[in-house]
Amino acid sequence: MKQINIGLLGLGNIGTGTYKVLETNRREIEEAAGASVQITKILEKDIDRPRDIDVPRERFVSDAEEIFSDPDIHIVIELLGGVEPAATLMERALCSGKHVVTANKAALAANFDRLMKAAKDHGVTLRFEASVGGGIPVLTPLTSCLRANKFTRILGIVNGTTNYILDKMTLEGLPYEEVLKDAQEKGFAEADPTADVEGIDAANKLSILMALMFNHYVHPDDIPTKGITDITKEDIEAAKKDGNLIKLIAYAEVMEDGEIKYEVRPMRIIETHPLGGVHREYNAVFVEGNVVGNLMFYGPGAGPLPTGSAVMGDVIEIVKAM
Amino acid sequence: MKQINIGLLGLGNIGTGTYKVLETNRREIEEAAGASVQITKILEKDIDRPRDIDVPRERFVSDAEEIFSDPDIHIVIELLGGVEPAATLMERALCSGKHVVTANKAALAANFDRLMKAAKDHGVTLRFEASVGGGIPVLTPLTSCLRANKFTRILGIVNGTTNYILDKMTLEGLPYEEVLKDAQEKGFAEADPTADVEGIDAANKLSILMALMFNHYVHPDDIPTKGITDITKEDIEAAKKDGNLIKLIAYAEVMEDGEIKYEVRPMRIIETHPLGGVHREYNAVFVEGNVVGNLMFYGPGAGPLPTGSAVMGDVIEIVKAM
Repeated sequence: MKQINIGLLGLGNIGTGTYKVLETNRREIEEAAGASVQITKILEKDIDRPRDIDVPRERFVSDAEEIFSDPDIHIVIELLGGVEPAATLMERALCSGKHVVTANKAALAANFDRLMKAAKDHGVTLRFEASVGGGIPVLTPLTSCLRANKFTRILGIVNGTTNYILDKMTLEGLPYEEVLKDAQEKGFAEADPTADVEGIDAANKLSILMALMFNHYVHPDDIPTKGITDITKEDIEAAKKDGNLIKLIAYAEVMEDGEIKYEVRPMRIIETHPLGGVHREYNAVFVEGNVVGNLMFYGPGAGPLPTGSAVMGDVIEIVKAM
Repeated sequence: MKQINIGLLGLGNIGTGTYKVLETNRREIEEAAGASVQITKILEKDIDRPRDIDVPRERFVSDAEEIFSDPDIHIVIELLGGVEPAATLMERALCSGKHVVTANKAALAANFDRLMKAAKDHGVTLRFEASVGGGIPVLTPLTSCLRANKFTRILGIVNGTTNYILDKMTLEGLPYEEVLKDAQEKGFAEADPTADVEGIDAANKLSILMALMFNHYVHPDDIPTKGITDITKEDIEAAKKDGNLIKLIAYAEVMEDGEIKYEVRPMRIIETHPLGGVHREYNAVFVEGNVVGNLMFYGPGAGPLPTGSAVMGDVIEIVKAM
């Protein structure tokens, strides 16, 4: 059996989850890939951080070039998060002839065309299923099973933190500040929740969805974006009275004249809509295609193991195509 | 641009829908496939049946061998429905070196191993995304994006007719017989509804799901199956009082000792469960993977255009891999 070697950039929460997915389901992954799969080098400064996995110390490197220049490494998994240095490192990896898998929506959305071009120019693959919807298969079905469609609409609940907060405000009648604090304590919101609650994370994901579904790339900074910080329990009560829920929606639609409308903002969704059943930190992407009609993909939009599941799914697809 | 020629078996409702999808979205399909795609021969006796598509008469053939022996035909799409002669014709096509795409769950579930073996032995591809969940991408994501999982559970609403009937009984408090008649008038139920209301169609789909997800093939006749004909409006009322809905569920689960439990029967689902939001004739497949957690795929489980969308999606994948 041939051996596939992976260089991993970042062993934080998501990196550790991905490592764990490979350890836990190694047999299934290697059978599906038709190859032995090893993470042989890891770029990470914080070697001694407590993790419940057992990583041999000699796998850690302090310079990403050690990975890019290693002729035995076939695939680079980028899980650093944030735009830089992640985007530059991904570009370096692609230009060094490595296939790249990433879960990093911020780096990807801000550099979509540049990274896609680098992959194409160097004859390698860039996959990023985990970047939208975490563990939920979204991007792959949209670009394979559903390719016989013209897509007309996207309504996405693509940020778990804000859905958790709005759902709890709705079910328990609590004010925003109190629920945010609870979400932070439970690990559903970061200490600095700005990127989530201001809708920035959702805009990154909408940018990626639009690029793939409408072949129309818009930089996330150019997507009109409003977060949930102004939503009061009175707003939610008023919506409820009309049979509606308030959800943070990443929305895009192709108008009859071909113009594309897009924005991220809190919207009223009728309770019986499939998106109305998306509770807690779950995500869902509801799309409309001109021949298939309405579809929804639902599941865990974040978390180390679900994200690791999607990352390793991308790795399997790359190995199968090699 | 290379040309891909297709032989189509059956130009009934689903065949006509598939033909229409290709005509409507030809540009998108050919761009995605990287080839010109033509349906050059069609096996169909009823040439003069009214269809709102324009098919040149010379494309009709009366003998399937004219398709299988044509060296210019690369792909056979089987949309005859029913077990025979569909299964035998698919096997003949595979043995003639044609790739096969089918939406036929009955023929596939009854002959799964035989057809998969024929494809493998002759170095061709058999794809069948449309056979479970109609237009919803289910089988492809389960066998690609999610391959890094061990699957542990399936709960599927995989029959639109029975979901339409149970949903209407629930929402309007009507008895089974009355709703069945309404479903027949609206085209959501066949004149002979046996395969749907007795759970046979759902058992076919569960057989296919289990074969792919658990690598464990069970003939649909060997799946304990109970339909919805005994469900009374009183049963539904009683469930409602406990916050439950009655849904026809295709269920399978891997127990702790590795044993697999499976059956098709009406089950109580708590209203707030994602499957509780599946109304009308819609389908949904809810699955659990050991690293990803819970996921749901929702959308139109039948119909000519949604099914045609999935069939043409399979065609695109085959052409891309050729």
